[in-house]
Amino acid sequence: MNNFEFKNPTKIIFGKDKIANLAKEIPANAKILMLYGGGSIKKNGIYEQVKNALSAFEVVAFGGIPANPEYEVMLDALKVVKTQKITFLLAVGGGSVIDGTKFLSAAAEYEGETPWDILSTRKPILKGIPFGTVLTMPATGSEMNSGFVITRRETKEKLATGSPVLYPKFSILDPQVVSSIPQKQIANGLVDAYTHVLEQYMTYPNDSLLQDRFAESILQTLVEIAPAILKDTSDYKAASNFMWSCTMALNGLIGQGVPQDWAVHMMGHELTAIFGIDHARTLAIIAPSHYRYNFDSKKEKLAQYAERIWGVTDGTIEEKAKAGIDKTETFFHSVGIKTKLSEYTTDYSGTAEKISKRFSDRGWMGLGENQKLTPADAAKIVEMSY
Amino acid sequence: MNNFEFKNPTKIIFGKDKIANLAKEIPANAKILMLYGGGSIKKNGIYEQVKNALSAFEVVAFGGIPANPEYEVMLDALKVVKTQKITFLLAVGGGSVIDGTKFLSAAAEYEGETPWDILSTRKPILKGIPFGTVLTMPATGSEMNSGFVITRRETKEKLATGSPVLYPKFSILDPQVVSSIPQKQIANGLVDAYTHVLEQYMTYPNDSLLQDRFAESILQTLVEIAPAILKDTSDYKAASNFMWSCTMALNGLIGQGVPQDWAVHMMGHELTAIFGIDHARTLAIIAPSHYRYNFDSKKEKLAQYAERIWGVTDGTIEEKAKAGIDKTETFFHSVGIKTKLSEYTTDYSGTAEKISKRFSDRGWMGLGENQKLTPADAAKIVEMSY
Repeated sequence: MNNFEFKNPTKIIFGKDKIANLAKEIPANAKILMLYGGGSIKKNGIYEQVKNALSAFEVVAFGGIPANPEYEVMLDALKVVKTQKITFLLAVGGGSVIDGTKFLSAAAEYEGETPWDILSTRKPILKGIPFGTVLTMPATGSEMNSGFVITRRETKEKLATGSPVLYPKFSILDPQVVSSIPQKQIANGLVDAYTHVLEQYMTYPNDSLLQDRFAESILQTLVEIAPAILKDTSDYKAASNFMWSCTMALNGLIGQGVPQDWAVHMMGHELTAIFGIDHARTLAIIAPSHYRYNFDSKKEKLAQYAERIWGVTDGTIEEKAKAGIDKTETFFHSVGIKTKLSEYTTDYSGTAEKISKRFSDRGWMGLGENQKLTPADAAKIVEMSY
Repeated sequence: MNNFEFKNPTKIIFGKDKIANLAKEIPANAKILMLYGGGSIKKNGIYEQVKNALSAFEVVAFGGIPANPEYEVMLDALKVVKTQKITFLLAVGGGSVIDGTKFLSAAAEYEGETPWDILSTRKPILKGIPFGTVLTMPATGSEMNSGFVITRRETKEKLATGSPVLYPKFSILDPQVVSSIPQKQIANGLVDAYTHVLEQYMTYPNDSLLQDRFAESILQTLVEIAPAILKDTSDYKAASNFMWSCTMALNGLIGQGVPQDWAVHMMGHELTAIFGIDHARTLAIIAPSHYRYNFDSKKEKLAQYAERIWGVTDGTIEEKAKAGIDKTETFFHSVGIKTKLSEYTTDYSGTAEKISKRFSDRGWMGLGENQKLTPADAAKIVEMSY
């Protein structure tokens, strides 16, 4: 087990009808900017619930934050924060709205001229204005972590950063919101959370027995509830375990003391930036190829995973490891997610080279748990994913 | 899954040689009271490590906090806090020292005349002076929770309470400290942590799939590392997983959204108060009888536990549940812990009635996950444990 430091101060308020508790979590006299996405919260009643809970506050609404929150849109929100003297941000949405809100929190306190520098320079973020979240879509775990990803339309870039000052003060998780989520988004959430766990798990054994089992617990639970939640989004047993699993998949806990490998995300982000493919689907495209390409360094964990999640007990380590990759692909297919780039676009020729060049141009840091993968390796993995 | 609210703001600093990081976690200009136990930290070098790390601070040392921290001793410490104008408490020890420090934190801000009222009235504790911990013995989880238990010698009482303001600011967990812990204390730690998990798990199914698996992860890990850590306390793989498992067993996480049953602790506390038996050993005495007495209400979880922890796959639910209890007893025996009161004292006659009367006198609240067990039930369970 590696040394680690862990602190997660977000208050989770979980359960039925908890949105009504909102007011007591926000400082009196706060002037609130309520951020949301494409407007589904107006159809499913969450907008009204939030407005009612905040009737004692001055609230400015800012909608229209797109999936893969865009820098350009967040700059518009930043103008509102400054002109309206906003003191508290409330994200009402999924990972995109919450990520955008984190960027906004940091940008509101940023003293440089170009807030994009927060992402491109990755200098430490030391201040942010306080914010909370009302989660409307389980998937990213952003409601209980301090990281965020922002997309810049004009340059087709998608960059990630974070800071310990950017944990939400609170997040309200009412599993009843799941009932109005379209199946496609549910499937995305399942694969997104599943892959978050894999990125913190599918490396090499390092004696972190408890972290391994916690990670496996989340995978097992996602596998168990996937058919039920896809069949009936109002199944509270499935919805509540889905929601809590997504949060636990990326709130830092399972990643403490273990090697991590975020290469699937790094390559996946590029596919979203280039083609606009849903984040979770890019992960499903890249992950199997990544594990096949790095088979030797990952085979022990792949075999452990195959045994404990999929009950594969026969065969050599290599046979079990291979079965683990195949089972993963089958699981993604079972929730309706395709795992080849060519199933999403016909225009994929040259993508491997393009991504490889982007990585080189950006100043290559090395991908994989040992930071040994080069842009040429990335090109091969992307090509295997065609 | 039940509704829940969860926030755990303690910063965990985990790993080799982390005690050296102490100074940067404590406010500059703090005047520190360093609390410790019987003096083992002077033999194993931890006292020196802490003193060296704090060389820039004014530090007053207060040793002699006994196992089952005593009210009378903590009142002496309170005098030191007040006369020396202490602003920060540092617990260097196991659960007893940390629990005593939490009481001291609250007592230092208490405005009534008799600090015992903090425990006996259980009024909300709204303030505490800040404190951190250096954990020297994995067991209780007190290093990452906000509860504490204090014993009053003169009345042979042992009472528990807690408050959200009593989370440690930080806790330093260096698994290397395990190497100097006597085998008897290691065994106590294993059984204590194991039972903490059981108290949050061995009730009835309530659709909390992820919490169940997290709980099972801790139990599996404790079972896996128990022989190794008892054989060689300097086995870092075993020590680090032992330490992290003990913390995770009682930092609130696995108890969110699930029914809990702290009856084994309630009865066990009385055995410690009456006979001075080590806390963990009282749990091992009571737990099997408690599960046998409440077999019908707990059999489904007992069977799940037997299957997932002990691989008992054959038989009816009742047969598996029974095997689960037997396996638990066998596990306690395997680490050298006896499970009958008569193995600790010959003077046990009348204990059941005495404990039952104590519960009645204190104003009975009902034990068990449904608060349905009466003092008469407790008497029967204790008698089954003779």
